[in-house]
Amino acid sequence: MDAFDTYITQNKERFLAELQELLRQPSVSAQNIGMKETADLVIARLNKLGAKTHLIPIEGGYPVVYGEIGDGPRTLMIYDHYDVQPPEPLDLWHSPPFAPEIRNGRLYARGVSDNKGNLMSRVQAIETWLATRGPLPLKIKFVVEGEEEIGSPHLTSFARQYRSLLTADGCLWESGGKDIRGRFMLTFGLKGICYVELEAHGANRDMHSAFATIVPNPAWRLVWALSTLKTPDDHITVDGLMDHVRPPTEKEAELLKSIPFEEEQLKADWNIPAFVRNLTGYELVKKHFFEPTCTICGFLSGYTGPGSKTVLPAKAMVKLDFRLVPNLTPELVLDLLRKHLDRRGFTDIIINLSDGEMPALSPVDGPLALASIAAAEAVYGQKPVVQPLMAGSGPMYPLCQEAGIPTTSGGCSDARSNTHAPDESVSVEDYFQAIRYVGELIRQFAS
Amino acid sequence: MDAFDTYITQNKERFLAELQELLRQPSVSAQNIGMKETADLVIARLNKLGAKTHLIPIEGGYPVVYGEIGDGPRTLMIYDHYDVQPPEPLDLWHSPPFAPEIRNGRLYARGVSDNKGNLMSRVQAIETWLATRGPLPLKIKFVVEGEEEIGSPHLTSFARQYRSLLTADGCLWESGGKDIRGRFMLTFGLKGICYVELEAHGANRDMHSAFATIVPNPAWRLVWALSTLKTPDDHITVDGLMDHVRPPTEKEAELLKSIPFEEEQLKADWNIPAFVRNLTGYELVKKHFFEPTCTICGFLSGYTGPGSKTVLPAKAMVKLDFRLVPNLTPELVLDLLRKHLDRRGFTDIIINLSDGEMPALSPVDGPLALASIAAAEAVYGQKPVVQPLMAGSGPMYPLCQEAGIPTTSGGCSDARSNTHAPDESVSVEDYFQAIRYVGELIRQFAS
Repeated sequence: MDAFDTYITQNKERFLAELQELLRQPSVSAQNIGMKETADLVIARLNKLGAKTHLIPIEGGYPVVYGEIGDGPRTLMIYDHYDVQPPEPLDLWHSPPFAPEIRNGRLYARGVSDNKGNLMSRVQAIETWLATRGPLPLKIKFVVEGEEEIGSPHLTSFARQYRSLLTADGCLWESGGKDIRGRFMLTFGLKGICYVELEAHGANRDMHSAFATIVPNPAWRLVWALSTLKTPDDHITVDGLMDHVRPPTEKEAELLKSIPFEEEQLKADWNIPAFVRNLTGYELVKKHFFEPTCTICGFLSGYTGPGSKTVLPAKAMVKLDFRLVPNLTPELVLDLLRKHLDRRGFTDIIINLSDGEMPALSPVDGPLALASIAAAEAVYGQKPVVQPLMAGSGPMYPLCQEAGIPTTSGGCSDARSNTHAPDESVSVEDYFQAIRYVGELIRQFAS
Repeated sequence: MDAFDTYITQNKERFLAELQELLRQPSVSAQNIGMKETADLVIARLNKLGAKTHLIPIEGGYPVVYGEIGDGPRTLMIYDHYDVQPPEPLDLWHSPPFAPEIRNGRLYARGVSDNKGNLMSRVQAIETWLATRGPLPLKIKFVVEGEEEIGSPHLTSFARQYRSLLTADGCLWESGGKDIRGRFMLTFGLKGICYVELEAHGANRDMHSAFATIVPNPAWRLVWALSTLKTPDDHITVDGLMDHVRPPTEKEAELLKSIPFEEEQLKADWNIPAFVRNLTGYELVKKHFFEPTCTICGFLSGYTGPGSKTVLPAKAMVKLDFRLVPNLTPELVLDLLRKHLDRRGFTDIIINLSDGEMPALSPVDGPLALASIAAAEAVYGQKPVVQPLMAGSGPMYPLCQEAGIPTTSGGCSDARSNTHAPDESVSVEDYFQAIRYVGELIRQFAS
């Protein structure tokens, strides 16, 4: 064990306590809860590290925490976010979402996997470097935003406005971790997203359902409209949308084939009898990474409590999430969706865009990619699983791809992390390994 | 003004206070709130009237309040219910649902239209009769149940068990009032209902929506299943269901044509651009009374709060209400629905029946019908609008039709009553007129 590892071992308790302090502070951007307090905590921690920091205000949004530390020929940006998903439904948590608790070697709390665990592990990796190896061999730029979970609505304008501040030779992205077999994964790109809310209105008030004979029902309007968007075997039928989707390149197909995908284990873990379309093997992996989605994330209309209330609802709302593969953009999907609905007479359905992000791809064989693959191998003792892109989304396009900055990933999540869901958690051991990975990535990328 | 009217005028304030006392007591059968307390209030009021009363227990349900008063060659049953619809959504009420408030001549409270207003006006009509005209010229039997708003699940067995107690020559049904032009309406039948909850399940927990590529989405399952049940122009397409629906008879068609239906006023009042299928005239009225419905009363899945939560829901639920015209029964609809879904591969969708009631029709020219038409004309100064049946539902079949008891209606509701919805209300003047109507009906039916 070298000094770096020893330092981590000696500081385990404090490291965990620091993380728990951050987790105890709610920071739900979608609900504007605890945002300022959390930004203050993050900037205080970066200051303690010795970084030069700025709290960069975002008009009409939550500030970006910026921090700079170290010097060298190369610059590594570290992108994280201090906001978390809403904790609902609360009754499905086994311990309160903002009262971190360790059970059976796992730390449970909202945001521990996405993304406060990674954020804190990176800060503590740098502390460990400074304490055991001296000055950093490269420059680190922390960009910690507060709006990732609501689709980073201001990050494009922020990145453009501060382009000269945000130069870098590579960026360590916010996410990462292990797959269901415990193999460390690296991804170099991600899907985009177009998150919309559809709204339909009927009468000006909820009515007795006896009038459903003659008064339009907005819930039915949404059902009928939705049923034209995707077939029961999960083919998106929004006019023209799939025409923009390209198949994986040969190189991408090769990578996809090398990704171990534990189908039986995943089905058992999630308790589902089959995957969508009954897919297996390469076709399953291909769909996961290279097909867009059209997902109902929420649907609400009328009376949803116990018993039978015979009401004809006045309105209905559905939240729809399109994950975008290369060549799809939020603007394009929004436009296709509006035209598709109009063409079928659903001009009454209101579409509100609540989140739009571009997909992004980064080279899998540049210096940053190679450094992170080598770092992962050194720390985890085996070759990482390399995915061309994540099925998730984030502001990688405006922050990195638009400026030509390659990206990599790596963190403390795993297949049981329940990201965005109740009982979010990480393995405590993985957390300390993630600190080691960051230390190794810095060494590899600087050399 | 005769003594009957004078008594009402002299007791207006107390009559309203008694009604408000009953309205202040919540009695939400769907949520088991205040049921015993309300039954006690009702039985106490009937005792005060001088009725012989029984609180008849219902195993696994809420008791029926039974009361008998008066004597004569004929017996008039009065059917009402002491339960009310859930008050939600609470934020749309301009005064709390269980804090009755009079504004601009209308009394606002949950249950005032459906059905505590009618119940109390009938009790007070009998009090007025006794105080001004002496003994009743017929026997009155009050049957006041506590489960109407949850579909009277025990009334069929109750009616069969107490058949000899529940004999009568006619029954004044719980509902009634004025149409949008202020014309008093009488109905002699009602639609049945089959209220079901459909449930679909996906993974065993809410997941990050990035996995929607490969993990089934229960909200989509319900949307796809629902979209096979009814077309966008509102034709029910449940296999075989419409084959059972008969067109109105000639006599029914004649009645339908005599129903004044203020289309423009209704559209303006409800703020809808057109009726379903763009219907007008006779076709509209016919659909309203003689077509079944398939109504989404509630739909819930996933995240429905503010902002964009990218979640793949673990389950989805929809509440569906079928209103049944003659020849449809709850059992038949349930059976057709299950087979329809299974035939299309939706065997995974769970159907829970939460409410089933038969449709019922009663003669429009028997002694009770003629007595109520004459009473309405005497009190309201014009011929009532006669509807063969209500678009709403209730336990008329087991309580009356099965035993050959004809029914009539009449009450204090109107087109602005917002029955089953926020800001439920009745006109205070209509309330006192409803008391007069009951007095006149007793006189006409007894003679």
